[in-house]
Amino acid sequence: MTTSSSSHPVVNFSEPRGFASKFKSGFKETFFPDDPFRQFEDEKGIGKVKKAAQYFVPSLQWLPHYNLGLLKYDLLAGLTITSVAIPQGISYAKLAGVPPIIGLYSSFVPPFVYAIFGTSKHLAVGTVAASSLLVAQTISSVVSSKDDPTLYLHLVFTATFITGIFQAALGFLRLGILVDFLSHSTITGFMGGTAILICLQQLKGMLGLAHFTTKTDVVSVIRAVFENRKEWKWQSAVVGVIFLCFLQFTRFVRRKRPRLFWVSAVAPMVVVVIGCLFAYFAHAEKHGIQIVGTLKKGLNPPSIQFLTFDSRYLPTVMKAGIVTGLIALAEGIAIGRSFAIIKNEQTDGSKEMMAFGLMNIVGSLTSCYLTTGPFSKTAVNFNAGCRTAMSNVVMGFCMMLTLLFLAPLFGYTPLVALSAIIMSAMLGLIDYEAAYHLFKVDKFDFLICMTAFFGVSFISMDVGLILSVGLAILRALLYVARPANCKLGKLPNSNLYRDTEQYPVATNTPGILVLQLGSPIYFANCSYIRERVLRFIEEEQAISKPKSDIVEHLLLDLTGVSTIDMTGIETLAELRRMMESKGIKMGLINPRRDVLEKLMLSKFIDLIGKESVYLSINHAVETCRFLLQKTDKQNGDSSTFYDVL
Amino acid sequence: MTTSSSSHPVVNFSEPRGFASKFKSGFKETFFPDDPFRQFEDEKGIGKVKKAAQYFVPSLQWLPHYNLGLLKYDLLAGLTITSVAIPQGISYAKLAGVPPIIGLYSSFVPPFVYAIFGTSKHLAVGTVAASSLLVAQTISSVVSSKDDPTLYLHLVFTATFITGIFQAALGFLRLGILVDFLSHSTITGFMGGTAILICLQQLKGMLGLAHFTTKTDVVSVIRAVFENRKEWKWQSAVVGVIFLCFLQFTRFVRRKRPRLFWVSAVAPMVVVVIGCLFAYFAHAEKHGIQIVGTLKKGLNPPSIQFLTFDSRYLPTVMKAGIVTGLIALAEGIAIGRSFAIIKNEQTDGSKEMMAFGLMNIVGSLTSCYLTTGPFSKTAVNFNAGCRTAMSNVVMGFCMMLTLLFLAPLFGYTPLVALSAIIMSAMLGLIDYEAAYHLFKVDKFDFLICMTAFFGVSFISMDVGLILSVGLAILRALLYVARPANCKLGKLPNSNLYRDTEQYPVATNTPGILVLQLGSPIYFANCSYIRERVLRFIEEEQAISKPKSDIVEHLLLDLTGVSTIDMTGIETLAELRRMMESKGIKMGLINPRRDVLEKLMLSKFIDLIGKESVYLSINHAVETCRFLLQKTDKQNGDSSTFYDVL
Repeated sequence: MTTSSSSHPVVNFSEPRGFASKFKSGFKETFFPDDPFRQFEDEKGIGKVKKAAQYFVPSLQWLPHYNLGLLKYDLLAGLTITSVAIPQGISYAKLAGVPPIIGLYSSFVPPFVYAIFGTSKHLAVGTVAASSLLVAQTISSVVSSKDDPTLYLHLVFTATFITGIFQAALGFLRLGILVDFLSHSTITGFMGGTAILICLQQLKGMLGLAHFTTKTDVVSVIRAVFENRKEWKWQSAVVGVIFLCFLQFTRFVRRKRPRLFWVSAVAPMVVVVIGCLFAYFAHAEKHGIQIVGTLKKGLNPPSIQFLTFDSRYLPTVMKAGIVTGLIALAEGIAIGRSFAIIKNEQTDGSKEMMAFGLMNIVGSLTSCYLTTGPFSKTAVNFNAGCRTAMSNVVMGFCMMLTLLFLAPLFGYTPLVALSAIIMSAMLGLIDYEAAYHLFKVDKFDFLICMTAFFGVSFISMDVGLILSVGLAILRALLYVARPANCKLGKLPNSNLYRDTEQYPVATNTPGILVLQLGSPIYFANCSYIRERVLRFIEEEQAISKPKSDIVEHLLLDLTGVSTIDMTGIETLAELRRMMESKGIKMGLINPRRDVLEKLMLSKFIDLIGKESVYLSINHAVETCRFLLQKTDKQNGDSSTFYDVL
Repeated sequence: MTTSSSSHPVVNFSEPRGFASKFKSGFKETFFPDDPFRQFEDEKGIGKVKKAAQYFVPSLQWLPHYNLGLLKYDLLAGLTITSVAIPQGISYAKLAGVPPIIGLYSSFVPPFVYAIFGTSKHLAVGTVAASSLLVAQTISSVVSSKDDPTLYLHLVFTATFITGIFQAALGFLRLGILVDFLSHSTITGFMGGTAILICLQQLKGMLGLAHFTTKTDVVSVIRAVFENRKEWKWQSAVVGVIFLCFLQFTRFVRRKRPRLFWVSAVAPMVVVVIGCLFAYFAHAEKHGIQIVGTLKKGLNPPSIQFLTFDSRYLPTVMKAGIVTGLIALAEGIAIGRSFAIIKNEQTDGSKEMMAFGLMNIVGSLTSCYLTTGPFSKTAVNFNAGCRTAMSNVVMGFCMMLTLLFLAPLFGYTPLVALSAIIMSAMLGLIDYEAAYHLFKVDKFDFLICMTAFFGVSFISMDVGLILSVGLAILRALLYVARPANCKLGKLPNSNLYRDTEQYPVATNTPGILVLQLGSPIYFANCSYIRERVLRFIEEEQAISKPKSDIVEHLLLDLTGVSTIDMTGIETLAELRRMMESKGIKMGLINPRRDVLEKLMLSKFIDLIGKESVYLSINHAVETCRFLLQKTDKQNGDSSTFYDVL
């Protein structure tokens, strides 16, 4: 054996690292995968302070280099997103069950905060439909927005405050890992389900209904629509359908001619203005078309005194805050990142969380409710050519002017116009193409997506979300509990060993079974791995007809085994004992550092002997063949063996 | 490029399998890893029926070949375990808060059922301490065993019935995967914590206390012992300590001289007999030593009429049944398997679950409470030389005779003798060596173990268990969320590529970065993988001083990637876009079948081109080097490049 191994590189059996160094590297990989402090290492004194300030306040990086050339672009983008912000603000506030003016407030303060702390250059801050509805759904389970609107509003502020604290804490503790568990499939299904819910809810506004259900599931909403048949107002419906057609047409134009994106960007504002004029001059209220009602002039009043931590409502408010916080983060971060990639720029997940958190904390103290980076607004901002977060500042100023001078005018907006705007936005969120793609590529992902979709539409938003995330985690655990193992064979005319099912041309070496274990070996999968390895051996014995071909060497390729735990090590030891009793010698191939260290610490390596740990499959198979040959010669029937070869 | 690739085997891009075949193989791997129906395939007609009967009733396999030679061994073993069963039965029944006679009943019926359906040859059926205490703890939260002993007993029968149904269902549905989630570390900690609790509880019996707490946590029990100081009886304590010393001495003897195992096996019976004689002749009761009290002659009465499915108690009873069922399974299956391995035999997890389930269902209908395969009794059975499950039948017959004729005699057993027996057994379960081993090899496993230990001792048994399992699952998710990726370098004088941290001699090829991704790529880890890959590239760029060495090719080795989901595929696409914008070409190496199929279905392969998917690292690096060379030649500075090489 020594003869054949001398020419080969050998396994590195150096001393295992200490606990401290292993813990440090494990901790760093878990919480600091982007190594944020790397950039400080070269700096000293003032330079270090400056770098640190820039690290925590990203605007310090770009603000010193800001110039009029950039401002030109940001000004245009800022004006454009303001025209989106006003109708969206009013609409989504209705959806959240808070007074419409709160929606306008929410586009004034938070953009300034984000511009200071955010890392994305394209994100436009604003309220979002899904989270608005979710807040309404959760909080109205304890307080009705109709019976006690003041308390309801205060609870919404409190929930926003909690969202802010939660998001900032996630960012500070670098727990972005939690957001990772909202998979793309979950989000696709959740958004689709929410869009359906919201569209159906808009039937109230479209049909001009006075009475409606507070429930949000599809069945209750449809029933409520038909039970109140007598309240249906055709005038309202006609106006609504006209608006909706107009909005959908502008979307169609944008899809056909991407350069005309501004047509669909200003369309909602056009609908609002036309609606206001129509309501003002035609006295729409008398014809059964409801309007928003009085909007007071003036900037955001402080709301810190309204935060309510009453133990009767706290659990519900906490739930609302945390769940919407997570969803808002997932949406905001994903959107910021996707636009950054297009421009080959970077966003920083942890800093984004901090920025969102601060934005919502400050917002909750200044009469705003939950804000994040909505897709529609961000896309408009990007298309309008924004260069930096300054476009948010521009929007903030515009909103300030609106609040100071124009707010009362928007009080004439007909509710049906808002419903048409929301419906049109929601129709764009039902991504059936993505769902079909999931169906084609990965059935389980499709199931996760559909669980979220139907859970949200037929049960409730949080239950749908939890079911879907639970299913995704279950799948993650299944991956781990049932890892893919395979038998390796040698490809002809090469020294490569590959899966014999994937490459049917790959051939076995008689008497030697090479298995690839493809995942961490540990408690959740070790009894599976044991069963599976035994079955591989039985199958192998069953097909090997000449007696000389019976498996005498079992080689486990550990290249894909990234880690192992105590139960896993015991399983290996158990397997070795079983093999020994069958007269089979077991060898390991290429254990990775973590695995090798644990195998050494637990004395498993001493048990099987260092000579049974190989660095490459080739070397292992060669060595085993050499051993087989020797035994065969001793048994005097080496000729049959060579015939097979 | 074609020149260099012609000599290499190529990636198999054959059509992806259909959904049905993939689903079938995935389902089989998840639920039938041992492929139970393989053996029927060759049989026909009667043979098939016979095989099937033997499959479902394993005793049909060995019973036809049973002979007197085997019976000799099983008779001896059966008699020995009966001597263990009587004291254990009475003691653990006290622990479970049910009348002592129930403990004797529980060693009569279940052994027969197990002998018919069980697959282990060494397992001895009986009650266990941990599950007894857990049942008592759970059920006494709704009904006190003192205030309403009848209802309490009925609820225990019902919990046993539910345990049986649950275990049989797990076996039938092949959900042994649930048991896999009780890791070795959890069980070590749980057993240790339970042993401490039970030992402390025995202070009641040892000190002859009349009043005691119903709580089981360490703090409450110690407080109860000292609050009832006035009830302490020195006579009881002296007798108890003598018994305990005797029992511990016999254990010591067994450890020193394994052949004298029977000394410790019969020791509890000796203690009981001596205790009875002592109590009978010395009228111990008058000296402050309590005895068990009347035990009625006669076999198990039916108890089917006592099963109580009252909605007031059902949730608690369900909880008791399911949790104890899981623990009993984990203990029983693990023990059966460990002894089978020593003898190079096999047990079948699913059939064992069925057998345990049937045993508990039948038991619950015949006045028995929860039974499983306790470690102590099984070890005695094994050491006494049992050959088949017939030893359980022998024990069953002996118990029958005991119940019919001797039961009343055992009524004189002093409680202090039982306490000494339990304490001695429990001291053997505190496996501090295993805990120390965990500490040395794997700190996280140690943490999981300690969580179970302290959770059980200071909070409650179920909370301790849940915390520990939760931590273990969290770890599994972390493995998945933070997979170990590494940079590969070429080992000198070979064509092997290995982790550059593990093998510092491995060297990079300038301009080419090879990364090994070591786990499924999917939603929970894909943003980590993206960050990590980007960091690898940045680090590489930072250290590459000559301009020509800047990374131009990124090769991802997917050998260890067993599967990928939609979010993972999108991450790869995103990475590719990022690389493209940096002028880096991305290639994949050796994608496994599942992964390759999904990449093809999602058109990712079309995106990067089939020529960028390589079968081996070597081929990939060679091809990239060839490309680099070509560009360098075109740029006219190939000399510096060759210098570096």
